[in-house]
Amino acid sequence: MQHDRFQSPFSWRYGSEELRALWSEQHKRRLWRQIWTAIARVQAEAGLVKPAEADDLAAHIDSVDVARALEIEAEIHHDLMAEVKAYAEQCVIGGAIIHLGATSADIEDNADALRLRDSMRIITRRLHAVLLRLADLIESFSTHPAMAFTHLQPAEPTTVGYRLALYAQDMLEDYQACHAEIGRIRGKGLKGAVGTGASYTELLIGTQMTAADFETRVMAQLDLPAYPITHQTYPRKQDYRILTTLAGLAGSIYKFAFDLRILQSPMFGEWHEGFQKKQVGSSAMPFKRNPINAEKIDSLGRFVAGLPDTAWQNAAHSLLERTLDDSANRREILPVAFLAVEEMLITLSRILASFSVNETAIAANLDKFGVFSATERVLMRLGRAGADRQAMHEILREVSMEAWDAVMEGKPNPLISLVTTHPALLRYLSAQELSDLMDATAHVGDAPARAADFARHVRTTLGDSAPT
Amino acid sequence: MQHDRFQSPFSWRYGSEELRALWSEQHKRRLWRQIWTAIARVQAEAGLVKPAEADDLAAHIDSVDVARALEIEAEIHHDLMAEVKAYAEQCVIGGAIIHLGATSADIEDNADALRLRDSMRIITRRLHAVLLRLADLIESFSTHPAMAFTHLQPAEPTTVGYRLALYAQDMLEDYQACHAEIGRIRGKGLKGAVGTGASYTELLIGTQMTAADFETRVMAQLDLPAYPITHQTYPRKQDYRILTTLAGLAGSIYKFAFDLRILQSPMFGEWHEGFQKKQVGSSAMPFKRNPINAEKIDSLGRFVAGLPDTAWQNAAHSLLERTLDDSANRREILPVAFLAVEEMLITLSRILASFSVNETAIAANLDKFGVFSATERVLMRLGRAGADRQAMHEILREVSMEAWDAVMEGKPNPLISLVTTHPALLRYLSAQELSDLMDATAHVGDAPARAADFARHVRTTLGDSAPT
Amino acid sequence: MQHDRFQSPFSWRYGSEELRALWSEQHKRRLWRQIWTAIARVQAEAGLVKPAEADDLAAHIDSVDVARALEIEAEIHHDLMAEVKAYAEQCVIGGAIIHLGATSADIEDNADALRLRDSMRIITRRLHAVLLRLADLIESFSTHPAMAFTHLQPAEPTTVGYRLALYAQDMLEDYQACHAEIGRIRGKGLKGAVGTGASYTELLIGTQMTAADFETRVMAQLDLPAYPITHQTYPRKQDYRILTTLAGLAGSIYKFAFDLRILQSPMFGEWHEGFQKKQVGSSAMPFKRNPINAEKIDSLGRFVAGLPDTAWQNAAHSLLERTLDDSANRREILPVAFLAVEEMLITLSRILASFSVNETAIAANLDKFGVFSATERVLMRLGRAGADRQAMHEILREVSMEAWDAVMEGKPNPLISLVTTHPALLRYLSAQELSDLMDATAHVGDAPARAADFARHVRTTLGDSAPT
Amino acid sequence: MQHDRFQSPFSWRYGSEELRALWSEQHKRRLWRQIWTAIARVQAEAGLVKPAEADDLAAHIDSVDVARALEIEAEIHHDLMAEVKAYAEQCVIGGAIIHLGATSADIEDNADALRLRDSMRIITRRLHAVLLRLADLIESFSTHPAMAFTHLQPAEPTTVGYRLALYAQDMLEDYQACHAEIGRIRGKGLKGAVGTGASYTELLIGTQMTAADFETRVMAQLDLPAYPITHQTYPRKQDYRILTTLAGLAGSIYKFAFDLRILQSPMFGEWHEGFQKKQVGSSAMPFKRNPINAEKIDSLGRFVAGLPDTAWQNAAHSLLERTLDDSANRREILPVAFLAVEEMLITLSRILASFSVNETAIAANLDKFGVFSATERVLMRLGRAGADRQAMHEILREVSMEAWDAVMEGKPNPLISLVTTHPALLRYLSAQELSDLMDATAHVGDAPARAADFARHVRTTLGDSAPT
Repeated sequence: MQHDRFQSPFSWRYGSEELRALWSEQHKRRLWRQIWTAIARVQAEAGLVKPAEADDLAAHIDSVDVARALEIEAEIHHDLMAEVKAYAEQCVIGGAIIHLGATSADIEDNADALRLRDSMRIITRRLHAVLLRLADLIESFSTHPAMAFTHLQPAEPTTVGYRLALYAQDMLEDYQACHAEIGRIRGKGLKGAVGTGASYTELLIGTQMTAADFETRVMAQLDLPAYPITHQTYPRKQDYRILTTLAGLAGSIYKFAFDLRILQSPMFGEWHEGFQKKQVGSSAMPFKRNPINAEKIDSLGRFVAGLPDTAWQNAAHSLLERTLDDSANRREILPVAFLAVEEMLITLSRILASFSVNETAIAANLDKFGVFSATERVLMRLGRAGADRQAMHEILREVSMEAWDAVMEGKPNPLISLVTTHPALLRYLSAQELSDLMDATAHVGDAPARAADFARHVRTTLGDSAPT
Repeated sequence: MQHDRFQSPFSWRYGSEELRALWSEQHKRRLWRQIWTAIARVQAEAGLVKPAEADDLAAHIDSVDVARALEIEAEIHHDLMAEVKAYAEQCVIGGAIIHLGATSADIEDNADALRLRDSMRIITRRLHAVLLRLADLIESFSTHPAMAFTHLQPAEPTTVGYRLALYAQDMLEDYQACHAEIGRIRGKGLKGAVGTGASYTELLIGTQMTAADFETRVMAQLDLPAYPITHQTYPRKQDYRILTTLAGLAGSIYKFAFDLRILQSPMFGEWHEGFQKKQVGSSAMPFKRNPINAEKIDSLGRFVAGLPDTAWQNAAHSLLERTLDDSANRREILPVAFLAVEEMLITLSRILASFSVNETAIAANLDKFGVFSATERVLMRLGRAGADRQAMHEILREVSMEAWDAVMEGKPNPLISLVTTHPALLRYLSAQELSDLMDATAHVGDAPARAADFARHVRTTLGDSAPT
Repeated sequence: MQHDRFQSPFSWRYGSEELRALWSEQHKRRLWRQIWTAIARVQAEAGLVKPAEADDLAAHIDSVDVARALEIEAEIHHDLMAEVKAYAEQCVIGGAIIHLGATSADIEDNADALRLRDSMRIITRRLHAVLLRLADLIESFSTHPAMAFTHLQPAEPTTVGYRLALYAQDMLEDYQACHAEIGRIRGKGLKGAVGTGASYTELLIGTQMTAADFETRVMAQLDLPAYPITHQTYPRKQDYRILTTLAGLAGSIYKFAFDLRILQSPMFGEWHEGFQKKQVGSSAMPFKRNPINAEKIDSLGRFVAGLPDTAWQNAAHSLLERTLDDSANRREILPVAFLAVEEMLITLSRILASFSVNETAIAANLDKFGVFSATERVLMRLGRAGADRQAMHEILREVSMEAWDAVMEGKPNPLISLVTTHPALLRYLSAQELSDLMDATAHVGDAPARAADFARHVRTTLGDSAPT
Repeated sequence: MQHDRFQSPFSWRYGSEELRALWSEQHKRRLWRQIWTAIARVQAEAGLVKPAEADDLAAHIDSVDVARALEIEAEIHHDLMAEVKAYAEQCVIGGAIIHLGATSADIEDNADALRLRDSMRIITRRLHAVLLRLADLIESFSTHPAMAFTHLQPAEPTTVGYRLALYAQDMLEDYQACHAEIGRIRGKGLKGAVGTGASYTELLIGTQMTAADFETRVMAQLDLPAYPITHQTYPRKQDYRILTTLAGLAGSIYKFAFDLRILQSPMFGEWHEGFQKKQVGSSAMPFKRNPINAEKIDSLGRFVAGLPDTAWQNAAHSLLERTLDDSANRREILPVAFLAVEEMLITLSRILASFSVNETAIAANLDKFGVFSATERVLMRLGRAGADRQAMHEILREVSMEAWDAVMEGKPNPLISLVTTHPALLRYLSAQELSDLMDATAHVGDAPARAADFARHVRTTLGDSAPT
């Protein structure tokens, strides 16, 4: 790597080697060559070129020489035509028939669709693994009670597993969207300069093949469906759809990470991302555990959220049969959107692999705050037992306020004792009954069952749609 | 309307009465009452309340009195509880049992889901009509040749119908997305303060009904599916998904309108939006036809494109079991997104209803520029006829340059004559053959067939998914 | 208010009456009339119209009749020309000379600039008051120690006043930007349909006045500078600049509110927004204090952040001498940006008016976490006293870990006692010296002085630029 | 360059070597070392370290060895501490005192401020050159009449120079904003982990220097002003301000490029970007001139417009004394914003260097459309000459319509002849007078004077603020 010039973090720091390779110059040109070869093969079937010419092209698909192509480009200022020439230099037999009848966008746009689809497959596969891990965690913690917070204020208890199920539900929706996207991505097909396929129609005169047949056969070789209608490029709407799908996923992961950052604060102290032993922390506070992985996720997440706007503008301004004002920014936004989301998923996987909860802190928070919400249950039962609802409500309000003040002063929460010894309440329910009702850990509704059901649902859904 | 204060254009200028009514205070409260009634009915089935109480609630669903509710709200600063009190004042029998066991968000969020779904139905219905109209136009113009432009430069011919099919293809994708959204929108269900349904579980003790059953029955009455997992609200991810769907549609319409604005320029002069007779135009240039409808569409379109960002932020920052930082902006972004897109569709319908092309201008542009691309055909045929490709290419380049210069000087395009009289070309093809090949109107590939096919495809697809 | 249709929250719920009036139809038309009157007065000076005609116009500036104008607009579909006619109906003497030589945008754009400037003045005035209040609070709390948090983890102590100074510094920068904006806002001037002022030049032939003089005089009457160069409208870049200024301010307030929401969580418990007595809270948790004002601020803040994008698009796409695709969205984004930011400021003022800190909680957090960072000081002093830095660092690390574990188990922090009784440390420093060094409240660097200085700086700066 | 992995276009394709070097790992570390050296020098003045130690640091500023530092980082997972170690390995004398008393952000944030300022200087310098070139062009074309377009419809004439002045006015505003930004950019100063400077205060005990003095002296060495108040980092608001300034500039260039794309369409044919001889164009249409430079500008422009949002989010969510969720995305958005804008400016310079207008086409368009607007003048003069305004208006409307129809049929515009021979008009004005009035080229108001004035204004303003 050259350290004397700007290197995008997406070129080395973020994302996997696999995905970075997919967006390399080398791979792009390999895809172009595959498409040129497919075109030549079908033209051979039509009798327009010789099978040996097509074979020659096929034989040199992997011989991409980027350096040579860039040399040529420096002269002719056209990257695709430069690759044609570089390829032709290698193909002694078939060199002359490369790109026959084609328009640049016939090659580039189908290659882009293939790259987008392969990228989406990588994302989907990583998300699949994350969801399976989440399903395990949901099950493990489905009954584990914990304080729930609304407005960052303690509310009622929930379970750790149920809270995890919330993230899983969001990400399962994203998974289904990504999975559907894989099937939805389409190439431009072979339609020439303005989408009419005029050059192919002309070329095929006198053969048995129509332009539509020709397109169908080439695309079958690429295993890529094509839009029936295009102008010079595939509709840029497709980019917007893909980027919003990625941004949606980024949002789900962002929320998880933001929540984790809060819960990892020692003021909550409930959840933790794993902590590497050799990591340099603060020397004065060696125990300090900064949620740097979750913070990185959120940093990338909000970057991804901004990318669809550019894609929208590209689609909206592809004037008439296309203008080129999408080109420069697509070189950046398409790869970095995938790489950023992949880095988020990689980081999330790492967090989940060593995900741990602090049971002591969870229990302490529940003790401190959970019992208050239980007064609601006490009130209901007192009502059923014949007490005057209004009077009971007032008593519970008073003891709650007293207990809250104690908690705020750092004392143990006296609420259970206040309730179970209050003479007016003991008239309707026994101390034991009151004590049972005040058990916050039982006040979690059907969260345990819903969480466990959802874990099963995740597995079932993933089973139906294993990533390829 | 009060003219002495700001009135949003979405309160009166843009959108239909029907959709504006859907987002009124009155309708929102009517939906709340429907939900309270559904809850009461199922609680009656469980034996928790009396059927007469539920009936009383049902009887007053339509008696919304916003003024009274706002009076109460001014005192207690809580809009939903104010409505509970206003409703209770009207329901002498059932007033006391309104909202039993429920949390505000149980009511509000299901009501929002219902409004969103009804709004999406209106959009889908309007889009359905637009697409049928487009299908007709595509068919009418499927074979009508016209100049196609890339980079705003004349390229090859296409057909008017094929160009229209491009917009239709985008919008059909939007239609399918909107249609799917109608089936995908889910309510929160009945799950209480943090999603565990604890209060309902408690309430139903001693009855035959579980909290899950209870939820299922209430939601069945509302004909609305529920998320299995929620925190205090439904996942705000749903808002993001809906708004990106709308933004996607807005982008498709935007592109059509932008293209129309270009084609309506007298410099192109090919397409026109209808022009109202009494419209005040420029007095000095009475024939001036500003594409004000298309401009309005684009203005609203770029506004809609900006709205999903806020929804993303809401979803990403709904900390733990929710915070309320979504509330204020959702009052605005949800209705205005729908109203803006609806106005775009209404305007598009109007444009398409009186859509006309200027055949003279189209033919003139084709004459001027279309023949150049036909030289490609000539070159191919010359090659087949045994001519030297390189030599022929040079000749054609020269005559093209000569013709281009003539055109740029405002003279008639001499290219056909230059080609059909060139001795070197006549050695291989007859003047008649050359003349036939130079017919730009024939140089449209399979655009006519593809356009016609697509019109059929639009109709078939719409037939399968008639809007409700 | 009509409850049966959508009402934007910015029409009634958010913002002041004063600012909503500024963006009313009535006020807009009053401004138009002021501009028409100014034009007429200068035309009278030039001898083009009679002084009595101009006087007649002046006399009817405040007689705006929106209902009548809308009636006319329904016929002629042009809102400005409809107002001309409605105004003319009232002006028996001068009616015929209204709008003489002018283009719609000459009137509308200068009126918009005036509204924008008046709106910015209101914002600046409110921000001025907020900053003075902040300066008071900074001073009151300049020396009040409190735990500071990085990554939401306790770090070192700071002071409450110093933290407040951070928000104040951001908002002071915003204040200066808003203040500068007031002086920077320019109108279009009087330049006609494409900015050349051709119609005025023509009109003034034979008078002593040039078109440039004419413009200067009219704008002087309006007390509004004009751009020297415009096309049909003032450059839409101005809108973008204003909206990013507002969005910047919204960001500063957003940060304050987000921090407050965290600090108001009982898990921190340090800061509070005021709480209205009659506010309906949770019945089970009557003490629960949801930071609903801070949440509203953040909700509006992220909405405002999204608005500049649309303004950027408007500016970027005002093709050639202008297109109208800015018109529809400017009706919305300009007023709502101001109204949303004003509501944020109003709410912030209210929060600051009753701003209170919980001294007990602040002290408790400081006791729990502040002492850890003091070990850094101990280490430095031990070094100066001749101890081996490495050995001392290890001892301090060990006792810190021991103390941290105790804290995490909910026990009192034993760190001070562990340090002041450690034999190896006592060899270099006395127990009293160690104890003094461990006083976290002294470990705040020069935060108190910097905070106090900054409060003075705020007052000085505001004094120099009193809002008008 | 490695071709087997993703390379951001901003690492090689876009921007200058100079700016890319500024954002390299190497340069970043050089800046860090400058800051460490400045700290050591002032600590030497205070007597805390030896001058020889500081000298040793100074001597190795340029010996950055990124590879070695990355090796260390792979072990300790902290990039700045890894650089400290790599630097220390080189500094035998002063290695141990590097970073004494400092927090990572004290180094990083001042370095970032320096990079941002240097980047802004490059942008400002390039913009300066662009504006001088524009001033020349404005002057050259100040009186050259051309058709002006509103709604893409021909309106009245303007001059080429006046239109250019519009872009220049926007960019001059940007220039002033960029220039002001250079003076406004501030570093964090030296304030430690939470902004209180506690570690420096402690360190300086017993010296003659306060923490504030220390900071002042270090920052003076760096020639960088510091914020008086910070938390761990400088306020991220600064990033937002810088990015909106860049986005504003991007918007101005975008508009110019979009207009150029329209005017370069052969349908308008008026303006052209230069065209390189060897550029591969369409073989069938060798004369085709795609505005690929202007398209690239617009592509990058809309990408830049999306970047401030992420910066806003960073600033708004830097919770309490900072969280790290800004870090990952700032690695990308700061450099690419500058590089993209620089590429836009480089491209714009190239376009302007070979900027040419097609005088024939401009004249033809003016002939065709310009005369219509002249009827306004004719009407005014007829009025002055005593004719009935209403009757004359009707006549002119009729002849205009007749002429328009002719133009639309591709015939020469007969309007002048229709007007100058109309008996009813000749009653008030002579044929010569009418003919003079119909000269569209005279109908440009004071555009020539305003344009020329503005060119002078540009030069004067630039003279006052020469870039450094």
